[in-house]
Amino acid sequence: MTDIFDTRKTRASDWFKTLRDDICTAFETLEDTQTTGPHAQLPAGRFERTKTMRDGGAGGGGEMSVMRGGRVFEKVGVNISTVHGTLSPMAQKSMAARKDLDFGDDHRFWASGISLVAHMNSPKCPAVHMNTRMFWTPHAAWFGGGSDLNPMIEVPEDTAFFHDVQKQACDKHDPAYYPRFKEWADEYFMIKHWNEPRGVGGIFFDDLDTGDWEADFAFTQDAGRAFLNAFLPITEKRRTEAWTDDDREIQLRKRGRYAEFNLVYDRGTHFGLQSGHDPSAVLMSLPPVAKWY
Amino acid sequence: MTDIFDTRKTRASDWFKTLRDDICTAFETLEDTQTTGPHAQLPAGRFERTKTMRDGGAGGGGEMSVMRGGRVFEKVGVNISTVHGTLSPMAQKSMAARKDLDFGDDHRFWASGISLVAHMNSPKCPAVHMNTRMFWTPHAAWFGGGSDLNPMIEVPEDTAFFHDVQKQACDKHDPAYYPRFKEWADEYFMIKHWNEPRGVGGIFFDDLDTGDWEADFAFTQDAGRAFLNAFLPITEKRRTEAWTDDDREIQLRKRGRYAEFNLVYDRGTHFGLQSGHDPSAVLMSLPPVAKWY
Repeated sequence: MTDIFDTRKTRASDWFKTLRDDICTAFETLEDTQTTGPHAQLPAGRFERTKTMRDGGAGGGGEMSVMRGGRVFEKVGVNISTVHGTLSPMAQKSMAARKDLDFGDDHRFWASGISLVAHMNSPKCPAVHMNTRMFWTPHAAWFGGGSDLNPMIEVPEDTAFFHDVQKQACDKHDPAYYPRFKEWADEYFMIKHWNEPRGVGGIFFDDLDTGDWEADFAFTQDAGRAFLNAFLPITEKRRTEAWTDDDREIQLRKRGRYAEFNLVYDRGTHFGLQSGHDPSAVLMSLPPVAKWY
Repeated sequence: MTDIFDTRKTRASDWFKTLRDDICTAFETLEDTQTTGPHAQLPAGRFERTKTMRDGGAGGGGEMSVMRGGRVFEKVGVNISTVHGTLSPMAQKSMAARKDLDFGDDHRFWASGISLVAHMNSPKCPAVHMNTRMFWTPHAAWFGGGSDLNPMIEVPEDTAFFHDVQKQACDKHDPAYYPRFKEWADEYFMIKHWNEPRGVGGIFFDDLDTGDWEADFAFTQDAGRAFLNAFLPITEKRRTEAWTDDDREIQLRKRGRYAEFNLVYDRGTHFGLQSGHDPSAVLMSLPPVAKWY
């Protein structure tokens, strides 16, 4: 039995792969073109790819692209994965509550997506996170994703630029998207116990299912592209700026807070750890070094 | 209206204070007597005390004793706190499930305890965690606690010694305690997503309410004392051993896993963050520096 979603699943997962390739190429180019600063004498960083598996492969898997110890990137992971299985009662409950779904007796799910976290050598370069995904159950299918900027020391001009690129991508689809998804990011990326945001936000969307799958997919693609359009110029601008030991210390402590957010609150991290995905892929987001006072 | 528990609460919280004082004195003595090794030229570490508050003080508070950058201790926090308030529906549910309690309309709680985490300079010295506490609700009161050893590079002789001291303390009270509480620690301190224990265990107990409060309190005190009797000799033995850069690297990665456990799974951490306790006290357990590959 074929299903309209069979083709859609393939198109979505193929596109996440294309985005991954574009990002990896762009990031390696940043490495090649970094010729000044304290890490410029290092070999230009290159991504290494490893296959990842869910439930030993029975539940699908993916590919983890990681670059470590580069000239610009201290550690960056770009994961793609396409997984399937049955939803745990806990996952059903959380999704049902959000989407007013009744999972009945059919608890299958399929999910495909790309997720990226970059931790930079320079405290003057913001760390960044991006994720887009398609989630399918027999009862509903939806997209989610977004990207958010995590400066160590905020530069208001960079924050404004990052948001402006996201806004333009959103406005092409629906003028209501940017205000809604910006607010959602502000809420989502709050480190509740410190009452402090993880970074300066961006956009976050989930459960996107307007009834027009093609339109939702097109928006998800634009959100993915907007990430590169926003992040590359900021990195090119900041990567050659000098920094001090104090800046590095600030960076390492910010990273501690980043790890706190991901381990205590992040929905994708919890879903990944609970659903048996490769923990080294799920936790690729964690910083290479972090400090707590 | 006085209640038999009024006196008991005071006795328990006074005792946690006494234990804190004994531990701080013993740890400062370790600092004073460390005269060789790469950090011996530093001033002997001293604890700094800060008051902590729950809900801005309305829900009680405590005192955080922290020593940083010493000769032996890279960072050690010893927190005592006595807090009270009303249990959130989520906390009630979790406790009710464990203890078969009906919270009815009276959701008050009171809790007092001591909690300690030590991260050592030397990768040859195990990190350690200890906690003992009394929890009271109008429906039941109980003790919990334990301590567990977290070597960076396991030395079987130290593991055996640590467990033996715990066993002796337990056996004085009930021969069933050690096997039960050792197994509980093995289960509790499992980093489920890695299917890997956080350390080499020790004892862990919770919900201890045999019906004889005096006996339970006496056991809790012995468990607290056993921590020092087990930890001090191991530290004295290992603190002057040489280590390599590779050992340090192993230590920093072990600490990453330690942070994962505390932020993803630890019951006390979640209770503390959700119940509005001072996050800097709750998260004192986090390592001064950690790495993720």
